Order: sequence, then C-alpha cells, then structure tokens
Amino acid sequence: MSHAVSPLAPKSNPTLPAIEGVRFATAEAGIKYKGRTDVLLAAFDEGTTVAGVFTTSKCPSAPVDWCRANLAGGKARALVVNSGNANAFTGRRGVETVTITADIAARAVGCAPSEVFLASTGVIGEPLDPTKFEGVLAETMTRVAAGPYLDAAKAIMTTDTFAKVATRTIEIDGVAATVNGIAKGAGMIAPDMATMLSFLFTDLAIAPAALQAIVSAGVVDSYNATTIDGDTSTSDTVIAFATAKTAARGLAPIETADDPRLPAVAAAFDAVMLDLAKLVARDGEGARKFVTITVEGAVSKASARRIAMSIANSPLVKTAIAGEDANWGRVVMAVGKAGEPADRDRLAIWFGDVRVAVEGERDPAYSEAAASAHMKNDEIEIRVEIGLGEASDTVYTCDLTKDYVAINGDYRS
Amino acid sequence: MSHAVSPLAPKSNPTLPAIEGVRFATAEAGIKYKGRTDVLLAAFDEGTTVAGVFTTSKCPSAPVDWCRANLAGGKARALVVNSGNANAFTGRRGVETVTITADIAARAVGCAPSEVFLASTGVIGEPLDPTKFEGVLAETMTRVAAGPYLDAAKAIMTTDTFAKVATRTIEIDGVAATVNGIAKGAGMIAPDMATMLSFLFTDLAIAPAALQAIVSAGVVDSYNATTIDGDTSTSDTVIAFATAKTAARGLAPIETADDPRLPAVAAAFDAVMLDLAKLVARDGEGARKFVTITVEGAVSKASARRIAMSIANSPLVKTAIAGEDANWGRVVMAVGKAGEPADRDRLAIWFGDVRVAVEGERDPAYSEAAASAHMKNDEIEIRVEIGLGEASDTVYTCDLTKDYVAINGDYRS
Repeated sequence: MSHAVSPLAPKSNPTLPAIEGVRFATAEAGIKYKGRTDVLLAAFDEGTTVAGVFTTSKCPSAPVDWCRANLAGGKARALVVNSGNANAFTGRRGVETVTITADIAARAVGCAPSEVFLASTGVIGEPLDPTKFEGVLAETMTRVAAGPYLDAAKAIMTTDTFAKVATRTIEIDGVAATVNGIAKGAGMIAPDMATMLSFLFTDLAIAPAALQAIVSAGVVDSYNATTIDGDTSTSDTVIAFATAKTAARGLAPIETADDPRLPAVAAAFDAVMLDLAKLVARDGEGARKFVTITVEGAVSKASARRIAMSIANSPLVKTAIAGEDANWGRVVMAVGKAGEPADRDRLAIWFGDVRVAVEGERDPAYSEAAASAHMKNDEIEIRVEIGLGEASDTVYTCDLTKDYVAINGDYRS
Repeated sequence: MSHAVSPLAPKSNPTLPAIEGVRFATAEAGIKYKGRTDVLLAAFDEGTTVAGVFTTSKCPSAPVDWCRANLAGGKARALVVNSGNANAFTGRRGVETVTITADIAARAVGCAPSEVFLASTGVIGEPLDPTKFEGVLAETMTRVAAGPYLDAAKAIMTTDTFAKVATRTIEIDGVAATVNGIAKGAGMIAPDMATMLSFLFTDLAIAPAALQAIVSAGVVDSYNATTIDGDTSTSDTVIAFATAKTAARGLAPIETADDPRLPAVAAAFDAVMLDLAKLVARDGEGARKFVTITVEGAVSKASARRIAMSIANSPLVKTAIAGEDANWGRVVMAVGKAGEPADRDRLAIWFGDVRVAVEGERDPAYSEAAASAHMKNDEIEIRVEIGLGEASDTVYTCDLTKDYVAINGDYRS
C-alpha cells in the first residue's frame, strides 16, 4: 500500500552535515515491505553518550523495554531500526528477538549488546523473526558512512509519505557543533511521547544525565505537543546520541545539566525536535491541512495544553477543518469538554486573524467570508483566549479526512 | 442535508403506550430544517415531578443552564424541544431566548415559567430567535394528545437517520406503570452525559429526589457508556417526568430513594435508557457497525470503563472495524494508552468468540479467518481480559467511516 505524498510535505529538505563519530547505512531485509529499505544500522564511535524518552503506554514494545534498560549505562555504539513490524505485544518471543538482534548487531559493530539500541515500527502483535537481521547487519556494517541522512529517514518510514529530517549548527566557545535529527510518524500519534520514532545525533560531548535533561525537556513542546489521532503508540521512542567529537576540537565536555552552555545546546535540540514534530503533523495519515492550535489566558500551561489537545483531538473539529468549515461552535464544544477551568462568557476564538467569537458569543463584527477564506489555506491557525489567566500553550495537528479512514481501514491487508 | 437510514436501525419500533398525564404535539417552526417537524411541546398534568442529568461541559448551552436552575423546584408542566439550533454559546441573547421561550410556553400551557423545561439541539453559536415560538406553541397546544411517541422522537432529530423510542411496563403492588423514553443522538456523543437529548416519561408517583436518584444512577451504564466520537456536547440533557397518575390507581407515591419499590422502578428506567443508548450508538454518524466493548478483570469498574472508552474512542480501532479488520494490535495500543493498571503479559483479547491474543501475545490457536468472519457482522463484540482484578464494564460505540468525515465536513453548509 502506498499513498501520494502529502500536499503538506516541505518543498525541499535541508542537507544534513556529517556528524563525526556517526556512520550508518540502510538495507532491504524484506521484513514486510518489498523493494524498499526497511533497516537502518547506525554505528557510533567509542565515547558516545545516549539519552532517551519512550512511550507512556502500559503495553510497551519489546524494543522499548530493551532501550529503557540499557539507557542506565549511558553509552551507545549502535542503533538498529526496522520498519514493517513493531515487535510489540509479542510476549516472550519479542524479548528473545531483541536479545538476538542486539547480539547480531554487537558482533557486526564490535561492542557489547548493552551498547546497542533498538527500535521497531509497524504492525503490532506479529512475531519479528530475528534471523532476518543475521547477515544483513554484518553486510550493512561494511557500507556505513557519514551520510546521507535522508536515506536513514527513508528506511524507518511506514505509512509516512515523506522522509523527515532537521538540523541545526551552533557555535560554542568558538567550536562548531551540529544536531541532526530524523523522525517517522504518520499514525498512532498522540501526546506523552508523540512520534513513533525519532533519533537525534550530535558531535557534542555531553554526559548522559545532561543529555537526558535536554531530551526530556525538549519533547514537551515538540513531539508531545503533536497529535494526529490521539492514539499513543506502544513503540514511541526518541533517542539522542552524542559522539563527543567536539572534545578533540577543544570544547570541554558538558558534564552536568547546570552547565552554562546547556541552554544554547538545548535550543538547538529543541529547534530540531520542533522541526521534526511539525513534519510529523504535516504527514499525518490523510492530512490535507497543518493545524496550529494556541490556547492563551489559561490558568496554567498544563491547563492550556489539555484544552489545546482537546481541540486538536476532537474528530468534529478535525472533520470541520477537512471540510474547510470555520465551525467555531465545535471549538467551543472542545474547550467545554476538556474539563479545565473555562468561563463560557469570557471565551474568544480566532481562525487565523479573524476573531469569530468574543465574550461567549459570535463576534458581532465577524465575517463568515473572511473566516472561510482562512479555512481554504493549507495551514490553519486556531487561537483561543480563555480569559482566566496568563498561561499559554501551542500544539500541532492535522485534519481528519476520508483518506485517514481509508488508510487505516486496510492497514494490515 | 439528509442521509440514508443507518443499516443498524432496528427493523421495527415498539409501540409506546400512552402515559396518563402526558400530552404532546409537534410542529414545523422552520428553525433550520424545512418540510419536517422541528419543535416538540409536551404538557404535563399538575403534580408531575422532574429530575435530570446534564452535560459536564464547561460551556453548557443556555437551555441546560435554564433546566438546571428549574430542577430545584422539582415540578414540571411543560417541555419544549427544538432541533436545528442548540442555543449554545449565544451569550446574553441565549439567556433572553430561553426566558422568552419559557414565557411563551407557560402562557400556552398555563403554568409558571419555572415549570417549563427547555432543550435545543443543532448548530452552536447561532442566535435562536424566540419569536419563532410565538404562535407556534399556542397552536401546538391545541393539538396535544397522548401519542404517538414516534412523532415526538422524529421532531427532535438532527443528523439522526431514525427516531429512537423505548418502553417498559411494570407492575408494582398490582398496579401497572409505564416508562417511555425518546432520544436523539448522531454526533458529538461522548461520556459524561452521552446523548444530546433524551426524555423519559412515567405515570408513577415519584418524589423528585427519588427520581433523580434513578436517573443519576441510570445514565452511568447507558448514555454514559456510549460514545460515537469522544466529543461531549454543550447540550446533553436527560430529563425524566413522572406524572404521579398511578397514585389515583392505588399505588402509594415513592417518596424516598430507599423505598423498597425503587429497584423495580429503576430497573425499568435502566432498561429504557439502555435501549435508547444502544439506539444512539447504532445511529452514530456514518456508522456501519454497532460495537460492544467489554473489559473484564480490571482493578475497578472505573478503571474498566476508562480502558473500554480508550478502545471505543480510538480512531485506529474504529477505522479498523470499519475496514472489517480484526486488528487486535490496535486494541493493545488502546489498552496501553488508557493510563490504567494493565499488565501486557496478562492481556487476552477476543473478537466475538475468537480469542486472538492471550498472555501478552498472539493466541497460538488463533484463526485469522474466524476473526475476520466475525468482523463482517453488523454487530461486533470486543472483549478484553486485563487479568488484574474482578471488575468489569461494557460500553457501546460504532465504527469510524468515511461517511462520518463526509457528514461532519459539511454539517453547517
């Protein structure tokens, strides 16, 4: 099954610079898809630190369990990602599969299995045969190189219609450093670890705890601020790898989260993660509109987030957007059902620059034509003023189209 | 806009017996719909008690505010329901509209405005002109009669494709009594007061507090166990009217909620409400499958309910059902995202009688053909065993089809 590229796909992709200490290659293991790459093997030089954030699902996949356990060591030498099978809800066999796969990868790369990180994406509940990786990973290891990252992003796609990459280069104490990121999304995308899989790479030297602080804070307003369908995956994974190569270029390692250089590094990571999160929303299954929802005047950021997500996950709001209907009554409904402090008679709502409602009723000066014109755009902005406090939040989503139903009505077949 | 009758519509409707003390008629007020009835006026004899449950929305409609305030009096003489306009998020004008409408109804029926109950359903945010009711209600009052209830159910429909009625007759201390109910549903249907509007009528003599106890308990496993799209309306209303006519037939009034006759009465109310709630799910917008989801072995009923609703509201589960795909991996996902206690390795899942997963993985004896055969039915049963406790719960929903998107992409136009 393939789908036309999302009309919201970026017109062009940035070229991601090589990151010293990161080499990778992709392969066709034929796990589910035929005639396309479905395995990514990345090898990291010794000294690479690692941090990660995973799904909050109570039914996490076997690779998520594996990565969580290995994060404690703080060191990474390899990453193996496959698409086509999530190795989730596969019981004891799933655990065997990750153990065997990590052994195969460790032999290919020359490291301990505990330094291997694994991620799988695709169908849930199908056993994943680890022998598929025997041979493939050793061969792939003979081809690893410093790029191109777009190939890596392509190999981890499932129903994604375009590859997702982002990059930032910063200079700290006169030393240039890079943060690259790739992601895959498309469906089963919801808060509490939004995208199914995203991997970040930097040549900076950052101790695991400091790197973890950056990633844990960074997901809040990027991946976790994104929703396609409110469905949280069993496999959501964000892992950051830091190869520490900038140390040889004279930049002292960042050893703690209170290092004064951390905010600049975090800003680069945040920018990459936000780029990727938006790309995920732009490639939501069946998406025709990229939607930014901002809630202001809430009593707290958490409250603003819950109201924004209530709007972003409302099927009635999302279908109205698909129908290019400035149906702000449904926004009122979604605010009302969020369960957060809100006063109907203080609410104001904007579509783009058009204020459609104010003080709990239709804006007397409201132009249906102007609101409808905004709804014809590819990018829709909804802003809600709650009128009770100072806190705000922004989330990203897409519309709900017939294509979403079509794509998900026959995903397994 | 009209839609073909749901394939899940009942083959026939019960005939609802007359209830002494209840008279009603419908009218065409042309509020939004043309060529169909859109106003229901019911008049109750003196001595009628009333109880109700309303939306939990923080942005309730003006009629909801009105009814909540009047419930305190415990007495009802009239009910006015209109379809086509919800009079929600209409600010001060909305309050004026309910005040004027109640005055018109009070004059027509001959009672105090505080004995008039109002409900409106339809578009949110459009002012509702109360002068539409002037004349209409007085004229309608000249035609009120003891039936037929199907006409009353038709007048309150919006995108419903069939009218929803239910009835039970019971005998208490040798006196026959009846509970009739009507409902409308179709969209914006979610827990915490599920259906938009439902009205219950009985000839029993029940004090308001006892009637309230019956209704408050009854909605839990009926309307509140129903979800179409997870979207809670601003207007959800269930009101029960008890005309007390059985008192003249020798049945002593039920004065308190601990009356030993209450369970039998509550059972009749519960049965009517469950019938109506299931009819609402069968007429979910675009529905082609009626889905019953049962969660067993949870740590509490509330936990089982949240897990069941997580499954029932998952767009991925609902689209898989639309595609007749026994995609139990998505059920695992929905269990996992519910945030409730669950142990992946103890889960078991059934589609109909087919156990597809057990002990955290695919059932080794699982037949895809048998599961797929169940998915072709109009009525789908999903059962999940959590394996952690003794509590269970059941909820009702429908599939998510392209027609849902089509219906809601152009509702206002």
